[in-house]
Amino acid sequence: MFDAPGFTGAPLDRCDAARHDPALVAAMRADPEARLLALDGLEPLVEDGRLGWLPVPQEDGVALALLGRSEGRPRFAALTPGVSAYKRSPELMALLLDELPAGDAALYGVARSLIDWHARHGFCAQCGHATEVLRAGWARACPACGAQHFPRVDPVVIMIAEHDGRALLGRQPGFPPGRYSALAGFVEPGESIEEAVARELNEEAGITVEAIRYVASQPWPFPAQLMIACTATARDDALRIDTHELEDAFWASRDEVRAALAGAPDARFQPPPAYAIAHLLVRRWAG
Amino acid sequence: MFDAPGFTGAPLDRCDAARHDPALVAAMRADPEARLLALDGLEPLVEDGRLGWLPVPQEDGVALALLGRSEGRPRFAALTPGVSAYKRSPELMALLLDELPAGDAALYGVARSLIDWHARHGFCAQCGHATEVLRAGWARACPACGAQHFPRVDPVVIMIAEHDGRALLGRQPGFPPGRYSALAGFVEPGESIEEAVARELNEEAGITVEAIRYVASQPWPFPAQLMIACTATARDDALRIDTHELEDAFWASRDEVRAALAGAPDARFQPPPAYAIAHLLVRRWAG
Repeated sequence: MFDAPGFTGAPLDRCDAARHDPALVAAMRADPEARLLALDGLEPLVEDGRLGWLPVPQEDGVALALLGRSEGRPRFAALTPGVSAYKRSPELMALLLDELPAGDAALYGVARSLIDWHARHGFCAQCGHATEVLRAGWARACPACGAQHFPRVDPVVIMIAEHDGRALLGRQPGFPPGRYSALAGFVEPGESIEEAVARELNEEAGITVEAIRYVASQPWPFPAQLMIACTATARDDALRIDTHELEDAFWASRDEVRAALAGAPDARFQPPPAYAIAHLLVRRWAG
Repeated sequence: MFDAPGFTGAPLDRCDAARHDPALVAAMRADPEARLLALDGLEPLVEDGRLGWLPVPQEDGVALALLGRSEGRPRFAALTPGVSAYKRSPELMALLLDELPAGDAALYGVARSLIDWHARHGFCAQCGHATEVLRAGWARACPACGAQHFPRVDPVVIMIAEHDGRALLGRQPGFPPGRYSALAGFVEPGESIEEAVARELNEEAGITVEAIRYVASQPWPFPAQLMIACTATARDDALRIDTHELEDAFWASRDEVRAALAGAPDARFQPPPAYAIAHLLVRRWAG
């Protein structure tokens, strides 16, 4: 169990100033202490329960992103065209849950989101021309039209609606058997966090909410969401479930949620995994 | 002065289900009650202090986005290739501040972010091919590689650090004369809201903060930010200003902030405009 949300707490100085200084980045790359994240595609190569790291290749042809500085060393990741795995493997999630320290999981998340963005954004959305890596891997530039493009971070609201001491939980078709979690959805252009929470709960469950409260946030590197966890109070408990989004939803009592979190054999549902902010949200609600 | 953050409160049912149903969108477009947002480029055409609306063109060649339903009418916006004005005119900001009702300004913000995104994302970032409008204007699809692309919403943290009863305010080089505001920066891949607040304050002002608290959020349609307002407590008040980002910064007392908000002739600075969430943040801090 994490005290802080999963994928937070990377022990990383992002060295923002260096990104604007190619000579400084070159010096950091040439530093014998510098290390390259060891990956197989987008999967981390683990050594003794920690992220694996390799010497940094010095050839010009290898595009690298400067992750920053961690444990005294410059840290890089290779930007490999075509390496993209939008999905996450069960093996990876088990590794993140059971084996890697939280800081390593968070550092891996930074690298994964960045590498995946480059792999899927090699062309200019404005004119279609091939783009080039800029700012030590934190942007791409189009040599044809001059547009600059920056890594996406997609804000997502994830929330528990409460009514009469019970919490609304739902399951998506792709969830593991028995799992229920907080409802969630992408924030759209032109709405606040609070408006997105109200809209998503209305669209997916047919409920109207008020008293929306922010709880916590986490980055989610599959591929690059910013998860924003909230609670809200429902005006009534009649559900109208959008079956395109949810397979099922129900109002869980505190006792049911506590039994699920405790892993009771007769629990009504399986809770979200510990690295997901939904777990923190459900746990805090259960008190 | 708005009670709610600027650009929130659009009286809009986004009709999410309709976006997935082309026949329903066609029926909404053919509805004689349907209206098209009146624009000159990206600037709104205002009638009697309200957004202007036109009959909806029925020709197939005009690409429209379904904004949703408002005041009983289907509402559309035309997607005009090449119409892009990343900058905002002083006339537009005056209009949003002084003339349009808050709900109209919010509805305009939805349309502006969406139109601007289409205008700058006509090509597939994954393969470079021209893309097509999908989901009634809420996505684009690539006919070559099959990738789907969704409108960007870029989360930004904006925050006041407090130390010993004073608030840290700064000014960027492009600000109007005398204006100081909360510091701000984009959330990056692999960090939480709280981590972004701490990093930005450290990068821009050289301070270390704790006790970060979420305050409120707003959409910012220039072009499509999600502004996330927070407060934090600084460990000490020594500043190391990043002159690439900030022209100046200082610790303002509550009396100085109140004088600025009251428009006192001898105020030390000009506050952010009322539609910006920085204004709400500063006002709440001043108490």
